[in-house]
Amino acid sequence: MSLNQASVQELQQLESQVAEQYEQLKAQQLKLDLTRGKPASTQLDLAADLDGILAGDYLSESGVDSRNYGGLRGLPESCAQGAEIMGLPAANVIAGGNASLQLMYLCMLTMFFCGYRGPDSAWKNLSNPKMLCPVPGYDRHFSLCENFGIKMINVSMLETGPDMDLVEELIREDDEIVGIWCVPKYSNPTGSLYSDETIDRIAKLGQIASDSFRIFWDNAYVVHDLVENPPAIKSLWQACEAVGTSDSAWQFASTSKISFAGAGVSWVGASETNLKALEQVLQVSIISFDKVNQLRHLRKFPNLEALQQHMAKHREIMAPKFSLVLETLDSGLNADYGSWTRPEGGYFVSFNTLPGLASEVVKLANDAGVKLTPAGATFPYRKDPENSNIRIAPSMPPLAELEQAMKVFVTCVKLATIKQRLDSVAG
Amino acid sequence: MSLNQASVQELQQLESQVAEQYEQLKAQQLKLDLTRGKPASTQLDLAADLDGILAGDYLSESGVDSRNYGGLRGLPESCAQGAEIMGLPAANVIAGGNASLQLMYLCMLTMFFCGYRGPDSAWKNLSNPKMLCPVPGYDRHFSLCENFGIKMINVSMLETGPDMDLVEELIREDDEIVGIWCVPKYSNPTGSLYSDETIDRIAKLGQIASDSFRIFWDNAYVVHDLVENPPAIKSLWQACEAVGTSDSAWQFASTSKISFAGAGVSWVGASETNLKALEQVLQVSIISFDKVNQLRHLRKFPNLEALQQHMAKHREIMAPKFSLVLETLDSGLNADYGSWTRPEGGYFVSFNTLPGLASEVVKLANDAGVKLTPAGATFPYRKDPENSNIRIAPSMPPLAELEQAMKVFVTCVKLATIKQRLDSVAG
Repeated sequence: MSLNQASVQELQQLESQVAEQYEQLKAQQLKLDLTRGKPASTQLDLAADLDGILAGDYLSESGVDSRNYGGLRGLPESCAQGAEIMGLPAANVIAGGNASLQLMYLCMLTMFFCGYRGPDSAWKNLSNPKMLCPVPGYDRHFSLCENFGIKMINVSMLETGPDMDLVEELIREDDEIVGIWCVPKYSNPTGSLYSDETIDRIAKLGQIASDSFRIFWDNAYVVHDLVENPPAIKSLWQACEAVGTSDSAWQFASTSKISFAGAGVSWVGASETNLKALEQVLQVSIISFDKVNQLRHLRKFPNLEALQQHMAKHREIMAPKFSLVLETLDSGLNADYGSWTRPEGGYFVSFNTLPGLASEVVKLANDAGVKLTPAGATFPYRKDPENSNIRIAPSMPPLAELEQAMKVFVTCVKLATIKQRLDSVAG
Repeated sequence: MSLNQASVQELQQLESQVAEQYEQLKAQQLKLDLTRGKPASTQLDLAADLDGILAGDYLSESGVDSRNYGGLRGLPESCAQGAEIMGLPAANVIAGGNASLQLMYLCMLTMFFCGYRGPDSAWKNLSNPKMLCPVPGYDRHFSLCENFGIKMINVSMLETGPDMDLVEELIREDDEIVGIWCVPKYSNPTGSLYSDETIDRIAKLGQIASDSFRIFWDNAYVVHDLVENPPAIKSLWQACEAVGTSDSAWQFASTSKISFAGAGVSWVGASETNLKALEQVLQVSIISFDKVNQLRHLRKFPNLEALQQHMAKHREIMAPKFSLVLETLDSGLNADYGSWTRPEGGYFVSFNTLPGLASEVVKLANDAGVKLTPAGATFPYRKDPENSNIRIAPSMPPLAELEQAMKVFVTCVKLATIKQRLDSVAG
């Protein structure tokens, strides 16, 4: 039965059926959590041999004693590892600590307070610095902007990446747009893949934007595929090199969702001009990052092939969870109730309710013991103009729990949607 | 022969003797380094079992999976470990990453930009924020001040700690003095121990200073003794609690010179008001610090006794190096040539040449293949008003190299001093 063609009576009947299902689920007093993209412990187990992998040998291939002070840019071999993952030269990479978020913070701090070529070029000098935020997006990116008082401007995410017509128009109109957030592969939360054309156009932004404009290219899911023959995205570095805009991007990656979420290695890649600027902050705030952990990751993943084999094991754990989510959505809902993504990688399924219902669905689920990412979290200022997007994170719970949680989710979406329809029909 | 009583002829003879010794040493083409307080690899070896110590068990006692995201304040057990080392309650500690310098930076950033109770209390609002710097001191502390544009005011280090009469006077005169740097136990580089009276007076600074005044209490050498029955210093926390100034201090410690210099654990201790303020920065810049490494350090040092036993092994390596340095200075020089400290712990011997000679000694040593910390490095703005202090760091080189390096050092001090005397006598 199509909701749009159902009579008031039919809708009332449907509502009471679904409400009963909801009450039954609620009675189970579940305690489930689909909020954050945390790896499951079975995934973390895949790297359980990291601790002890050095077998007492703390020397890097290049002869650095990883235990001692020194090496602001990290182990050269770790830089090369990050470079291969991100697709740019090793000389353009700094290997960091356990969080790429920290590197993003420090890069933003560098741009905001120090400037990429001295204080005159610092963002803080602008009257109203702004950043473009493809939406829905990652809440921690938005928190960074808020922290520095950078105004965020929403840009729609298309299947091919951000709406580049709008991006270019906005940048042409306003030279105080200092950057854009991008998760180019399996975007958080939509799972979008940036097309070659999008990446080429992003690389050219440096030609129309101010010199201090920066692309924050968070390649968090670069090797995190859910399919066997995964798509690749174009190298931003090469695209920028081709059009002379190498200074316009900061790139980030980490092993947070490869090895240990809280104890991996992170990398930042950029032009030498940018890295030198970043070093202004690094050299006062740290003597060196944890090179021992960098070395562990080199021993664990001696080459890209080893890394890809490791990621295949992640896929074996993750793919069934995503299948379960999609099957539950496909069988329980249809276009009358919303729309959802079918990602080929990454950590999320992005669900759009009918306009206005996201917060109601999240509340209903929460009341039934299933925690969802708060409605609005995927938008700047926690404000989803449509009140429609919900990020589903299937990685953490075991399959059985995920099944229960998704059953609740589907029921909540149904209940909220039917109620809304009924209100609108009944006037 | 006393230099002051020597005739010109005697001085000339002495100079040519010492110059010849110097040329002989120079001819050896040494390549030695006494610049930084880096642990020797034999010291790092003491903790070689850190990697692998978890034996696959990544769960903390409190049941936290150390591998996953979460826990902005670190493992509770690690907080307790830091608390015991620093001497304050576990609830007042955040366990951090591999560098206490990073925590100092973040605390300073918090005070400068965010303020301990909102933007109105931020140091950046002041027209000319200043910090008191006991001298000689640690160059990285000074770099932090320079980075934030905080003016540094020199305060003399006495045997009992900073000249507190001067400290109190300066603070009373100027309410834009926002802090003081302190290395209370085995100060870098003088090795001074703050007396109980000094610590009580420091605790009372919060009563006369502005609300946003902070003691930066860098307890870098708190368990780093060179003697068997080491002295203890009074707990700053208790001293502050006693006079109601708990908000006035940030305390820091780390295992950088306990386990691995570049891959240890660091802690910050402070009142809840201060920690909450710091969390404003932490929550945007990091998801969690490396809890796996925190857990390793808990397994390696399950209690303070285990830690102290470990430090006794460091002492066995370090004490002979300090003895060698002092013996070489004692036998080669006397008060005519300068003065030097006899530390009971820490990482440095602080040497004062006659006024005006430090840079000449450093240059002579450098020309003879022995790198010393640049003259002035132990002072704000790299400017030693007396041009006299040289920090000797004996930890890194093996004994045989240290012996050679100290022979060069003594010869350089002699040569520079005799020349100066000759110039002044010959006029």
